[in-house]
Amino acid sequence: MSDDRITSLHGAGGEVMEQFLAKYVLPRFADRSVGRIGLSALDDGATVDVPASSELVVTTDSHVVKPVFFPGGDIGTLAAAGTLNDLAMMGAMPLTLTLAAIIEEGFLTSDLERILDSFANVLDEVGASVVCGDTKVMPPGEIDGIALNTTGLGIATRAISDSSIEVGDRVIVTGSIGDHGMALLAAREEFRLETELRSDVAAVWPMIEPALRTGGIRAMKDPTRGGLAAALNEMARKANVSLELKEQAIPILDPVAGLSEILGISPLEVANEGKAILIVEPGSAELVLEILRKHTLGRLAAIVGTATDEYPGRVILGTEVGGRRFLDMPLGDPVPRIC
Amino acid sequence: MSDDRITSLHGAGGEVMEQFLAKYVLPRFADRSVGRIGLSALDDGATVDVPASSELVVTTDSHVVKPVFFPGGDIGTLAAAGTLNDLAMMGAMPLTLTLAAIIEEGFLTSDLERILDSFANVLDEVGASVVCGDTKVMPPGEIDGIALNTTGLGIATRAISDSSIEVGDRVIVTGSIGDHGMALLAAREEFRLETELRSDVAAVWPMIEPALRTGGIRAMKDPTRGGLAAALNEMARKANVSLELKEQAIPILDPVAGLSEILGISPLEVANEGKAILIVEPGSAELVLEILRKHTLGRLAAIVGTATDEYPGRVILGTEVGGRRFLDMPLGDPVPRIC
Repeated sequence: MSDDRITSLHGAGGEVMEQFLAKYVLPRFADRSVGRIGLSALDDGATVDVPASSELVVTTDSHVVKPVFFPGGDIGTLAAAGTLNDLAMMGAMPLTLTLAAIIEEGFLTSDLERILDSFANVLDEVGASVVCGDTKVMPPGEIDGIALNTTGLGIATRAISDSSIEVGDRVIVTGSIGDHGMALLAAREEFRLETELRSDVAAVWPMIEPALRTGGIRAMKDPTRGGLAAALNEMARKANVSLELKEQAIPILDPVAGLSEILGISPLEVANEGKAILIVEPGSAELVLEILRKHTLGRLAAIVGTATDEYPGRVILGTEVGGRRFLDMPLGDPVPRIC
Repeated sequence: MSDDRITSLHGAGGEVMEQFLAKYVLPRFADRSVGRIGLSALDDGATVDVPASSELVVTTDSHVVKPVFFPGGDIGTLAAAGTLNDLAMMGAMPLTLTLAAIIEEGFLTSDLERILDSFANVLDEVGASVVCGDTKVMPPGEIDGIALNTTGLGIATRAISDSSIEVGDRVIVTGSIGDHGMALLAAREEFRLETELRSDVAAVWPMIEPALRTGGIRAMKDPTRGGLAAALNEMARKANVSLELKEQAIPILDPVAGLSEILGISPLEVANEGKAILIVEPGSAELVLEILRKHTLGRLAAIVGTATDEYPGRVILGTEVGGRRFLDMPLGDPVPRIC
């Protein structure tokens, strides 16, 4: 067994796996227990103390992003932030995450360490822990690099759904749109473009929590795969309202707009990994905006639209010169393995 | 988009994925909610009602078994049973599971349907549900077939660890050992042996629950990767006791013993997927055995050993003719992608 590459034995449930967990996993994650039987017990499972009178919120995501390391983050950052953000979108304070890895035989342990460090750093930002995990190894040609699955557990006094929207509510986006998808695309082998694009991957909970306290947030969703277009269409359909956006109000960074034009891919249809769509009752919109902008992640937050009853279930994009068109639900994100 | 094979759009977060979930996933899993916001809401997450005064138990596992369909089950059976069994080993009644799939582009939707049916059937046996999920698609050559991740949530009055063992306790196995590993091996392309071997994959909770009520079970573990040898060594180390086994008391089916001899692989070192090791206080051992044997899965249950203080942290195997040897912790399961 070589010490610098993952071998099949690292996922084979015996002595080698035990040493691997003791060397790489426990030192990073075992010191923050959320129940009587914690990660360090390496038992068949773990226990989680759920405070009485709170709702337990659960979410799960696999991450298969390519390349594994990209400008602004890596699969570890993404797996942690992605799951924490799903919890945040339910209004849930993150409690703990599971972490399951499927790794290609021959993967560099130094790369794995970088990924685990990234994962741990994001958890540290929000005070969350790893409660239990799993490691599987597959031969080359059967998995490309590494895939991570995380299930997140969080708690809320009352979880917020993505469908509670009323006519007149304002649509807020917490920052620039399309950064992750365009940065990934630029970093792909087939392009390898020299750009200043960086993924926006980040855990949004520290920005969302104070905004939640206003009591004015009615619905939330993070615009990941399929981007703003998919998320808004989903929300409009579920709530049976029309969401009318002002195109020029949507913050889009210059390099994102530039690459989007070159490739012919809309920044509204690619994934974001550190942004949220907030549906806010009209009287609280300005206050929520102010709170969001105080946080680094929310500097570019903007009110971009309003819920109406004109075309229930549809999203409408109004251009600067007065044109209007439907922003349709995309068939799917144009970029494969974007997250 | 062809309707009979998975395409990249099925995992791309837009219209196609939404239709896919509505057609294949929701009809199978959406009718059994465990909280206010359930699977059918297709929100960023779901809520789970956790009864007061019970411990929440969490466990996670990825399954990458090859072949996907094998004698006795498939990856769907395995993913459900594997995670439910980890909950059962903590003494936890299963509540709900997450289900995250990573699928190879071109995978047959008919195969996916078989897998989802298998998954649903195992859940039905124990009354558990799917609380939330995720679908990712990877191009051919980047994932081989399908990988599933499941996180299980269960509840126990007080979860049982795998390390609470006292000298004098009896070691019980709930049935024949080595079936899954040997059946998988025989089914592999490189062997394709004609045998009557079948995986033992099954959810053990219905057998374990009545045995738990005796109050005599001190520790449990399911001998998956690395088999009985890995599980017992782990338990002996954690509890710092010696586990002394009678080799001839360990139930091993004839075809398992036969193939084991041909291949030179010990049945004690390969995975089981429908078996449990129970550590029982001496006074309850016979009663627990009787209860186990009443269940179909436990017909061959046997007391196979005793905890002693002779060699703390080690497992000893006593042969019929009076020989004794250490049963060491294997480096890892000899069969890759066994679960």
